[in-house]
Amino acid sequence: MPYSYEHLFEFTSGILIKMGFNKTDSDKCAKVFLAAELRGISTHGITRLSDYYKLWEVGRINLKPQIKIVHQTPSTAVVDGDSTIGMLPALFSMELAIKKAKDAGTGWVSTRNSSNFGIAGYYAMMALEHDMIGICMTNASPLVAPTFSADAMLGTNPIAFAIPALHQPPFVADFATTPINRGKFTFAAMMGENLGYGFAQDQFGNPSDDPSILEKKGSMLPLGGDREHGSHKGYCLGAIVDIMSAVLSGANFGPFVPPMVAYLPVLDKKTGEGLGHFFGAMRIDAFQEASHFKLKMDEWITTFRNARPAEGYERVLIPGDVERENEIRIRKEGILLKPKVVDELKLIADRFAVPFGKS
Amino acid sequence: MPYSYEHLFEFTSGILIKMGFNKTDSDKCAKVFLAAELRGISTHGITRLSDYYKLWEVGRINLKPQIKIVHQTPSTAVVDGDSTIGMLPALFSMELAIKKAKDAGTGWVSTRNSSNFGIAGYYAMMALEHDMIGICMTNASPLVAPTFSADAMLGTNPIAFAIPALHQPPFVADFATTPINRGKFTFAAMMGENLGYGFAQDQFGNPSDDPSILEKKGSMLPLGGDREHGSHKGYCLGAIVDIMSAVLSGANFGPFVPPMVAYLPVLDKKTGEGLGHFFGAMRIDAFQEASHFKLKMDEWITTFRNARPAEGYERVLIPGDVERENEIRIRKEGILLKPKVVDELKLIADRFAVPFGKS
Repeated sequence: MPYSYEHLFEFTSGILIKMGFNKTDSDKCAKVFLAAELRGISTHGITRLSDYYKLWEVGRINLKPQIKIVHQTPSTAVVDGDSTIGMLPALFSMELAIKKAKDAGTGWVSTRNSSNFGIAGYYAMMALEHDMIGICMTNASPLVAPTFSADAMLGTNPIAFAIPALHQPPFVADFATTPINRGKFTFAAMMGENLGYGFAQDQFGNPSDDPSILEKKGSMLPLGGDREHGSHKGYCLGAIVDIMSAVLSGANFGPFVPPMVAYLPVLDKKTGEGLGHFFGAMRIDAFQEASHFKLKMDEWITTFRNARPAEGYERVLIPGDVERENEIRIRKEGILLKPKVVDELKLIADRFAVPFGKS
Repeated sequence: MPYSYEHLFEFTSGILIKMGFNKTDSDKCAKVFLAAELRGISTHGITRLSDYYKLWEVGRINLKPQIKIVHQTPSTAVVDGDSTIGMLPALFSMELAIKKAKDAGTGWVSTRNSSNFGIAGYYAMMALEHDMIGICMTNASPLVAPTFSADAMLGTNPIAFAIPALHQPPFVADFATTPINRGKFTFAAMMGENLGYGFAQDQFGNPSDDPSILEKKGSMLPLGGDREHGSHKGYCLGAIVDIMSAVLSGANFGPFVPPMVAYLPVLDKKTGEGLGHFFGAMRIDAFQEASHFKLKMDEWITTFRNARPAEGYERVLIPGDVERENEIRIRKEGILLKPKVVDELKLIADRFAVPFGKS
C-alpha cells in the first residue's frame, strides 16, 4: 500500500519537531527527505530518518544550531553548520551561494561541521528558478578505496549539476562517484545474489563479488572499477569532492569523516569539524542572455534525446529524465516503502506518539 | 635517441613563426606542446603540431587573432578566441580567470571560437603560483556515445583540477571522461592486439573489442563502460563539460564540434563558433588562510599516500604523481619521439626550412 506525500511529510516533520527542531526547520528538512522519495532515490529518503533518530538518541545532533558564515568575499563563503542535521546548513549555504551569484555573477560556499544532507540534486536544483546553474557536492563516510589501495579512504562523494532550459525540462545530473551506491550491495545480499565484478574488493584489495564484503573490511571501488577501465579517474573525482567539501571548509576529510550511524563510535582523530559540503551558483546572464542560453539548452537536450538508440534500447536519456518521470508517477501513485523501513518508522512513531500508517 | 627540450621548443616555436604567428605567441604555444611531452602525455604533445600544420595549409587557423572579452561580471567572462590555435585563447582566458579571482574571490571564464588547446592540466596549474585552485575543461570532436546511444555525440571532454599544497607537491588531476584515451586504440591496433571490453562499441551500439572500431563508425564508451558499471555517470560528466565549455560560451556543442583534422570537412550545421573551453580560478584565501589550507592539503596528501596498498601494488598515488615523476625523468633523459612522429615533423621541417634532428 503506498503512502501519500502529505502523510509522510507531516510524519517526518512531526518526528523532527518531537526531537526538538522548530517547525520551520522541521518542514524544510522533511521536504528534502520527501524529495528523495518522489525522485525514486529511496535510499536517501525517509529511511534515513532512523539514522538521525539514533544519532539524536545519543546526543550527536545539535537541535538549536547557530549556523553562521565564518569567512567571505563577494563570490565566496565558508559556513559552519554547528553540528546539526545536514539539510539545514546545506539549505543555508545554497541560499547564500545564490545570493552571492546575484551580486557577483557566481557564488561558492564550502560548508563544515555538517552531517548527511540527503540528495545533492535538491540543492543544485534550487538554482534553477533563479536562471542559474546549481552545483553541489558532499563528502561522506569512508567506504571507497583509491586505486591501488586496500583501504576505504573516501565516501561515495556525489556531484550534482542542475542546468536550466527553456521549454525542455532542466538538465539535472546527480551521481555518486562510484559505479553503484551502497543500496545495491544491501539489495543483492537480501536477494542472495552475487554482486558481479567491478564494484568491490576484499580487505586485501582483491576483486570481490560478495555483496556483504563491506561488512568484512572490504571496500567499494571508484567509478571505472579497476585501473585498466579508469578507476583512477573515479578516484580523482572522489578526491576533488572531498577536498572542495572538507579541506576548503575545515571539515573532516577522507577517512576521518565522522560515521553517520550511531552504532559506530566517534573517531579519535579529527582533521576538522563534522562533514563537509560544497555549493555553487552561476548566474546564466553573467555569461550571456539567459533566454538565449536556455533556448540553446533546449537544442542540446533535443539533440541528445534524438540520438540513435543502441540496439536493444528504446531511447537515449537526458540526465534528470528518470527522476522527473519518477516524480510524476509517484506523486500520482503514492510512495511505496519497504516493510523493513515501515517497521523502523513505526518504532520511531511509537516512541514519539506521532501517528504513522495512514495511507 | 631522445631530443632535448630546448631543441624541440625552438623547433616548435620556429614552425609556428613560419606559419605566421608572432614570436611571443609562438613561444607561449610551444611551451604548452612541450609541457605535454615533459609530463609524459605525448598523445597531446608535439605530434599535434601536424594537425595544426594541416589545418593551417587549408586556411582554417587565424594567425592574427583578436582575442576578446565579449561579456563579463566581477567573477565571470565569455571570451571569443577568434578562430586561432587553442593555446592562445586558453592562456588569455585562464589569465583572466586568475585576475578576476584576485578581485572577486573566484573567476570563471567560458571560451568559444577556439580549437584544441593541448593538455587541460597546463591551464589549471597556472593557478597554483597564485595560491589558487585552478580548473579547466574543454569539449572536443565527437567520439563518445552517451549511455544507450549508438552515435558518438561527445568528445573525450577532459576535466583538470590543480590544488596547491605547502611542502608536498600540488594535487593535479587531469583526465578524460572516458576509460581510456584515443591513443590506446591506435596502440592496440598497431600491436595487433584486441582492445578488451568496456571501452568501445560498434556502429549499432554493441560491445566491441576491435581497436579499429572508431574507423568503422563505432564509438568510445563513457567512463564506467556500461550502464551496470555506471557509464551514465561518465556520460553526465562529458555532458557537463560540453555544456560549461560550449553552451555557456556560444561554441559548437556535442556532435557539432568542428573536426580538428584537416581531412574531415567543416560540418554543415553549426550551433555556435568553434570549440569551447571552461576555466576557473578560486583564491584559497577567499575561503580560509592560504597557509593553513596548504598545510591541511599536505596532511590530505600524506594520508592518502600512506594508505595501505592493495595486494600486488607498491604504493597509492596522488593525482599528479606520475606526471611529475615523468617530468623529472624526461627533463634529465630527454624527450623520446615515435618514428612516425619524427617522420611527420621532418616533413614540416623541410616545408619551412626549420632545422630538425639535433638531439
